[in-house]
Amino acid sequence: MLVEMREQADKVIARCRYLAQFTEEPGQIKRTFLSPAMRECMQTVQGWMEAAGIQVVTDAAGNLRGRYPGASSTSLMIGSHLDTVPNSGAFDGVLGVMMGLALIEALEGEKLPFAIELAGFSEEEGVRYSLPFIGSRALVGRLDAELLETKDGDGISLARALTSFGLDPSRLDRCVLSDDVAAYLEFHIEQGALLESEDKSLGVVQAIAGQSRAEITFAGRARHAGTTPMRLRNDAVAGAAEWISEVERVALTTPGMVATVGDLRTHPGAGNVVAGQLRASLDVRHGEDAVRHQAVDHLLAEAASIAKRRGLATVSKMLMDQPAVTMDARLCRLAQDAIRGIGIEPLSMVSGAGHDAMILAERVPSTMIFLRSPGGISHHPEESVRAEDVRNALAAGLAFLRNFDSYCALPILKEQSTPHV
Amino acid sequence: MLVEMREQADKVIARCRYLAQFTEEPGQIKRTFLSPAMRECMQTVQGWMEAAGIQVVTDAAGNLRGRYPGASSTSLMIGSHLDTVPNSGAFDGVLGVMMGLALIEALEGEKLPFAIELAGFSEEEGVRYSLPFIGSRALVGRLDAELLETKDGDGISLARALTSFGLDPSRLDRCVLSDDVAAYLEFHIEQGALLESEDKSLGVVQAIAGQSRAEITFAGRARHAGTTPMRLRNDAVAGAAEWISEVERVALTTPGMVATVGDLRTHPGAGNVVAGQLRASLDVRHGEDAVRHQAVDHLLAEAASIAKRRGLATVSKMLMDQPAVTMDARLCRLAQDAIRGIGIEPLSMVSGAGHDAMILAERVPSTMIFLRSPGGISHHPEESVRAEDVRNALAAGLAFLRNFDSYCALPILKEQSTPHV
Repeated sequence: MLVEMREQADKVIARCRYLAQFTEEPGQIKRTFLSPAMRECMQTVQGWMEAAGIQVVTDAAGNLRGRYPGASSTSLMIGSHLDTVPNSGAFDGVLGVMMGLALIEALEGEKLPFAIELAGFSEEEGVRYSLPFIGSRALVGRLDAELLETKDGDGISLARALTSFGLDPSRLDRCVLSDDVAAYLEFHIEQGALLESEDKSLGVVQAIAGQSRAEITFAGRARHAGTTPMRLRNDAVAGAAEWISEVERVALTTPGMVATVGDLRTHPGAGNVVAGQLRASLDVRHGEDAVRHQAVDHLLAEAASIAKRRGLATVSKMLMDQPAVTMDARLCRLAQDAIRGIGIEPLSMVSGAGHDAMILAERVPSTMIFLRSPGGISHHPEESVRAEDVRNALAAGLAFLRNFDSYCALPILKEQSTPHV
Repeated sequence: MLVEMREQADKVIARCRYLAQFTEEPGQIKRTFLSPAMRECMQTVQGWMEAAGIQVVTDAAGNLRGRYPGASSTSLMIGSHLDTVPNSGAFDGVLGVMMGLALIEALEGEKLPFAIELAGFSEEEGVRYSLPFIGSRALVGRLDAELLETKDGDGISLARALTSFGLDPSRLDRCVLSDDVAAYLEFHIEQGALLESEDKSLGVVQAIAGQSRAEITFAGRARHAGTTPMRLRNDAVAGAAEWISEVERVALTTPGMVATVGDLRTHPGAGNVVAGQLRASLDVRHGEDAVRHQAVDHLLAEAASIAKRRGLATVSKMLMDQPAVTMDARLCRLAQDAIRGIGIEPLSMVSGAGHDAMILAERVPSTMIFLRSPGGISHHPEESVRAEDVRNALAAGLAFLRNFDSYCALPILKEQSTPHV
């Protein structure tokens, strides 16, 4: 079994690297929604899927949808996305699809008590339409008429892009998950360094963090850096610096929180002028919305208080307030037990990044298994995955499949499925 | 006398506002080196000067040079600059020239024991050639062949610009101050809010602060803002924020120091990415070079120490290390006594900005009298000056002239000059 998983794991990695050739820009990996590169990628993946006994269609949202039949109509969906950011690595998204394919291949035709639906989502990164999760949105009925009118950078509406690709937007309602889908499982690289720092191979995602994004402007008075004594200044940079340290302090002292000031813009932005204005980004994430909201409220109040003391003014603009999404507790336990079953202890995690599972969770119990990201590197050509972790994930995935009927409490017993092996 | 000064002061202000019409850009004041607007300005000032009995020439550096003869060849130079920054106010520079003119006018032809040279410098702000003090540099013999090859934004060399204006660069050596010039006096708006905050009308500048300018780069690792736990970050913004607070703390606790971080550039500069790099400007000024150097050394070491603790790297680039220039102590006392003589107490100041007096001081004892800048506003259309302060400055200036022969210890007595009144 271990030897088998070693071969399968190497194949998963080789396939991810092979698919990296399908790119819009030679020299880097870039594969956006409905691009010619995406069509070539889908054709290749479809070929592999069909060779594994999977029935494949492309749905009206451009998602590759495969079905590996089971002994009942009940199904488990396994999936992730096939699109990438510009200058991407080879594993973000693609790995999850290749994992599902490898698991089905590992069954060697065995019919399980349930079917497996394998999904390769057409869009998750939000590159072409500045709108992420287009693929998985279709599965929960959220690709509505308004979204279809969204235009890309070339002024092409989403509806027209689908039509040009040979798809029929009027059939989008047929993308929606059937009631037979009992659960959604997604494998994904962590995209962070937590597993690595904890020396763990795999993690089970308990929740996808809620996100607040805001823009805070500190406004003071632009003054001559040479002639304005310190105590007569209303220095936007000095005020913002004090506040940024508070942002960091709050996040460091709140378990599970990340808070980031990633972008600063100074005005006038000259070395010999006390800054009259500084615009700062704020990104706060946490698995519990109440904790996140409390932190954001505190940080905005703190910005105003620092500003007041320094004779500055602040303007805050909320750009995003996206609630946390909880993964299904029973399904998470199933994933954890499967990982423990192969002799390793998984890390319980909150995903700081959004994933298709966040969208699917609206309609169906969902969970995610994270694989360690070496160096925490993602969205970068050096993004990678360790073969050992892929082996573990495959072995745990098979254990998950073996126990999934108990999760579903399916009337069909394991014994009954044996004849199909 | 007070009534007279009131009229003269109003005239000084009216003339400054009148000269504001000579601009390269309608709707704002912008008068750069050797521009047509500068020529018109010079012609107008020359007319006023000649009407006051001053002999006027334009020297080879484009400076307006007037001489009001005295009973000896010894002279006092009074001056400032006629050029402006873009979108300037009406008083920066021009006021000092109009003050000298008004003082000569107030003498009503009286011959003093010494001559007065009135200088309207052609260039101080450094706009056209990114090189300040072109006018006053010529008076100390520092407008050399190398500088003459400097090109402006249109590729026109300084030498060619002089020639096109009708000047002869080969005669630049004749701009140099003669040994008969015993001292230099410059009136200027403060360009800061210190006099206002101390409720003082006038200040006497004891020194022009030395300046250090540097660029500090904090380099960390750009990482996903959602997936990178706080303790696994090497956040360039958070490190820089801590350092900026230290810059402010050092300046606040060092008397006479100003330190400014006016410009910040984040990279990649996205709200959802932990910044991998931040480039910060640093500007430190103080009247004593040793104090300034110690502060800069401390701040660079502190940047490195903060960076080390946070797993960041720093690179520091020194861009400027300009020594402080001390004004002449006896001449400063003469100015202070003159101000006290009209019944007000001057503030002893260090100028945080550079001035022509800084250049002249290389060759001749120099001092400056600052007039209060309402709101500390300068280099801005709202820059202004209070008529009351101009009256005080004129009265003090006359007292200064009355006592200047004692400073020079001239053999000619006051009594001897009386017949010429």
